[in-house]
Amino acid sequence: QGLLLGQEFPNFEADSSQGKIVWHDYINEKWAILFSHPADFTPVCTTELGTAAQLAPEFAKRNVVMAALSVDSAESHKAWIKDIIAHKELGGDDIPYPILADEKRDLAVKFGMLDPDEKDGTGMPVTARAVFIIGPDKKLKLSILYPATTGRNFDEILRVVDSLQLTAYQSVATPANWNVKGGASTVGGGSTDNTDCMVVPSISDDEAKEKFKKGFTKAELPSGKGYIRYTPDPRSAM
Amino acid sequence: QGLLLGQEFPNFEADSSQGKIVWHDYINEKWAILFSHPADFTPVCTTELGTAAQLAPEFAKRNVVMAALSVDSAESHKAWIKDIIAHKELGGDDIPYPILADEKRDLAVKFGMLDPDEKDGTGMPVTARAVFIIGPDKKLKLSILYPATTGRNFDEILRVVDSLQLTAYQSVATPANWNVKGGASTVGGGSTDNTDCMVVPSISDDEAKEKFKKGFTKAELPSGKGYIRYTPDPRSAM
Repeated sequence: QGLLLGQEFPNFEADSSQGKIVWHDYINEKWAILFSHPADFTPVCTTELGTAAQLAPEFAKRNVVMAALSVDSAESHKAWIKDIIAHKELGGDDIPYPILADEKRDLAVKFGMLDPDEKDGTGMPVTARAVFIIGPDKKLKLSILYPATTGRNFDEILRVVDSLQLTAYQSVATPANWNVKGGASTVGGGSTDNTDCMVVPSISDDEAKEKFKKGFTKAELPSGKGYIRYTPDPRSAM
Repeated sequence: QGLLLGQEFPNFEADSSQGKIVWHDYINEKWAILFSHPADFTPVCTTELGTAAQLAPEFAKRNVVMAALSVDSAESHKAWIKDIIAHKELGGDDIPYPILADEKRDLAVKFGMLDPDEKDGTGMPVTARAVFIIGPDKKLKLSILYPATTGRNFDEILRVVDSLQLTAYQSVATPANWNVKGGASTVGGGSTDNTDCMVVPSISDDEAKEKFKKGFTKAELPSGKGYIRYTPDPRSAM
């Protein structure tokens, strides 16, 4: 019931709107997002899968493959995709990622994706709005679980992908409400630039001086511990 | 391991920065947010708990009580709170919610909040950045699980609280990227106003006409199924 961070995301085979998918082959050595929805031909899901299709070029740029999943059949997914394309005016005759068919609920049960509050016509629970973000090491990096009534925020999903990818390769972490694109935060205090990162505690000041060519700013604190150190995104232009 | 949507959030007792907390008494008949952080006196956590303190009036307005949690002691929490207040210039001598002490990791294990990738000085795993949103019925409504390196977005947490509370009492659901405050979405198509809701599928057109005095707009779809129906937030002024 439910996967924990750091666990390897298990391999599986599933039929999909784009044919048979072997999960570990599909994600290969890329980042991956697996996200489930309650049912085909329902309103919120249509806006979500359409929004995901619109953002697919952003995810592709970040080396992220995507797959959706619900307890409907591959045939149902294919018919529903026509509605998604029409509603979001996407053009073409497919969306840029497969929708997996989990008719027997094997995957939904295994990965803790079911929403007991939402049932289909036969009284069986359907999938919630789960999102799993998986690293190139196939381990679970982040998960969210929203109910059927609350459509996801794909801008937030892009934001956390940016954070995961930045912090996987640099000795920084990203503060509350950080955004690689910047933008005003609703609350002030601390860093004035939403794009600033924080030096991780395992790095000493001397190491940080060496590592972060743009320098860092250390906050004065009552504890006298110098653990709050802001630094610009180390990947950005000087 | 890991709680599923719809499960009752178990009762527990814990020491905290504000004394002993009995969870079900503390949440009483309100909405509740329980959120964990890896460790006191660390950078991202300081920005997060400070941001949560800044947004506490917004949560209070929504009848939501908050509590933080980590594997540090109540004494450690109290000392660290001084840093949080100083860093975010909050004023006063406490933050507006308790930080629970889970030194033996009982709660962290029970609720699937541990992050095996992050260990403390003794090699024990610490808490991840989990968020549980619990309804007045004490059932789990929504959860997120972010790793230590990725600070949470408290604007997103406010957004989903707004959605959960709206959809709990009205026959609507909220589409992808919906926000009660509106604001431009990064991607177009579908509804042009981010604040529009969707009529849930269990309501017929006739019932919807009766129920939603502001009317609704039905989208034309290739399937000919009329399941995409946008309506203004039913609570907003006409």
